[in-house]
Amino acid sequence: MHTLHVELGSRAYPIHIGGGLIDQAELMVPFIQGEKVAVVTNGTVAPLYLKRMTAGLSADGLDVVSIVLPDGESYKNWETLNRVYDGLLDARCDRQTTLVALGGGVIGDLAGFAAATYQRGIPYIQVPTTLLAQVDSSVGGKTAINHPSGKNMIGAFHQPRAVLADVSTLATLPERELRAGLAEVIKHGLLRDIGFFEWIESNIAGLLARDRAALVYAVQRSCEIKAQIVGLDERETGARALLNLGHTFGHAIETAMGYGAWLHGEAVAAGMVMAADLSRRLGSLSVADVRRVVSLLERAGLPVCARGLRATRFIDLMRVDKKAAAGKIRFVLLERMGSAVIRGDVPQEALRATLDAYI
Amino acid sequence: MHTLHVELGSRAYPIHIGGGLIDQAELMVPFIQGEKVAVVTNGTVAPLYLKRMTAGLSADGLDVVSIVLPDGESYKNWETLNRVYDGLLDARCDRQTTLVALGGGVIGDLAGFAAATYQRGIPYIQVPTTLLAQVDSSVGGKTAINHPSGKNMIGAFHQPRAVLADVSTLATLPERELRAGLAEVIKHGLLRDIGFFEWIESNIAGLLARDRAALVYAVQRSCEIKAQIVGLDERETGARALLNLGHTFGHAIETAMGYGAWLHGEAVAAGMVMAADLSRRLGSLSVADVRRVVSLLERAGLPVCARGLRATRFIDLMRVDKKAAAGKIRFVLLERMGSAVIRGDVPQEALRATLDAYI
Repeated sequence: MHTLHVELGSRAYPIHIGGGLIDQAELMVPFIQGEKVAVVTNGTVAPLYLKRMTAGLSADGLDVVSIVLPDGESYKNWETLNRVYDGLLDARCDRQTTLVALGGGVIGDLAGFAAATYQRGIPYIQVPTTLLAQVDSSVGGKTAINHPSGKNMIGAFHQPRAVLADVSTLATLPERELRAGLAEVIKHGLLRDIGFFEWIESNIAGLLARDRAALVYAVQRSCEIKAQIVGLDERETGARALLNLGHTFGHAIETAMGYGAWLHGEAVAAGMVMAADLSRRLGSLSVADVRRVVSLLERAGLPVCARGLRATRFIDLMRVDKKAAAGKIRFVLLERMGSAVIRGDVPQEALRATLDAYI
Repeated sequence: MHTLHVELGSRAYPIHIGGGLIDQAELMVPFIQGEKVAVVTNGTVAPLYLKRMTAGLSADGLDVVSIVLPDGESYKNWETLNRVYDGLLDARCDRQTTLVALGGGVIGDLAGFAAATYQRGIPYIQVPTTLLAQVDSSVGGKTAINHPSGKNMIGAFHQPRAVLADVSTLATLPERELRAGLAEVIKHGLLRDIGFFEWIESNIAGLLARDRAALVYAVQRSCEIKAQIVGLDERETGARALLNLGHTFGHAIETAMGYGAWLHGEAVAAGMVMAADLSRRLGSLSVADVRRVVSLLERAGLPVCARGLRATRFIDLMRVDKKAAAGKIRFVLLERMGSAVIRGDVPQEALRATLDAYI
């Protein structure tokens, strides 16, 4: 087991990465303050892992309540959030209750937001069971639900007390979700560490074959990169926005397609290609660089464009992105391979040219 | 104009108290970071003050959006909250937008929660227009909405950038709301400052007659007491719970009666009598003390009991109060007049005797 520490002062927390962690209640117990634990999960994950987790916690004398939600991005909304509140209230959970988010990114974001807002905030632990959640959404304390007009529009910053990334849960992950998770792994290399990007190029076959050691390293290095950037800028006033490489385009794709039609990682993959292409048009990447990005994403089985969308609507959707400021779209672009920058001055013509090429 | 400072480190903020502040946009402008301001108010307050406020802000070159909600505690829910999000999204408000909560406690709590959660948090300014909001809900950064099972169950801590308590808005306040606000003023004296309690005893007629100087002092001293306690304990892990004197009983009354049937201050008044009576049964107050509390509340025209409720249901409702811990109800009681304490060890018989006497 590897352990990283996210350095956020009084809100610092550990990320444990390894196999079989779900059965190791002793990793969670130090972070549980009361006697009650509410495990929030979904109908896909529950049959696989809920009993194992509950058994360990109960054996430690904790009172475990479980709340099982429907699975899917289309449920990341008010109605499902209210089911969590109802479950917590029905079980008389108080402010000393610790919430455990057991599942993928949707569970992590939604249950995390429930923890941020139930009785004005209760502690929670992230136990991500998808690659996407392990490398991305469980690190950094962003919680949210979607609004019909925009993804993650309603949310809060609420840091977990601990994260358990159990890579053995990736064995049961559907192929498509594994690939979607790799999009965020690739993103971390592309925005911050060209050496890691090269490592992924060399190990993509192993990752797709779910080689345990390759997965552990991919999760670990991704979490390190993300934790480092989050440590610099917890509330996303500056550097943290770099983590959104591909996301301004990606969120617009997700919203335009309807939540759930594309997986988040798929939209980010196509979005990264657009960000790379736009960077090339602005002179900072070469044609070969863009081809290299496209090639790795294609080898990972990810989409590299998003056909059938209208450019004007797409631009409208990008304007409601949370990174927008005073109506101006701010783009995360690449100043070179392995280094992202934020640009607010992208000419309309360059943007239109990129959209014409990829949507 | 008097100005207090709530000392919360990087989240410190001023409270301005005086007459005619709504027209003084220059008091708000220093706290507005972007070019856009969203004023959230209700259908009762809007005709009185919205134009005046908007005029001042617009004259300063700001782009002002207004969101007008239905008035009343029964609207402090998800549906109304979503109307705020919809309004912000329709107007393309981004993270640089500053929200202004113009209205009473419901507007302050709900708009504050919208500010806490819209795009994971935007800045906001409180402009409370009721006595209750000026002396209580606009100080301390508690934001919330109600859940059918409990008042303020869903919320966040989110400090405003500034508070403008314009006592001239109290001129248009319905009599019943003025009296409800006085309940919280009396509470501040009772829990922390017997000298202030005595001042209220001497000045209750002037307060009810809306004497400007008396109102300014009552608001100022209440905010000082509250700000001092909040400064000690921003997240309510200790001392801050003292401010909930009368609230454990009061919230149960509000929920049992149905939100909106009783005003919050009315429920707190009856709740304070119960807290005083329970304190007497536990030996810390005299019969004369309880009579003195009842007498002042009666002179303020407030209810001093809540007839027609069942004790078992009432106790159930108290158990879901946010101050409950591990199923135990924690009471804010009086160790003497002017000094509150938290007690988790109240015998059932004493509680039942108090409930038998007052509900």
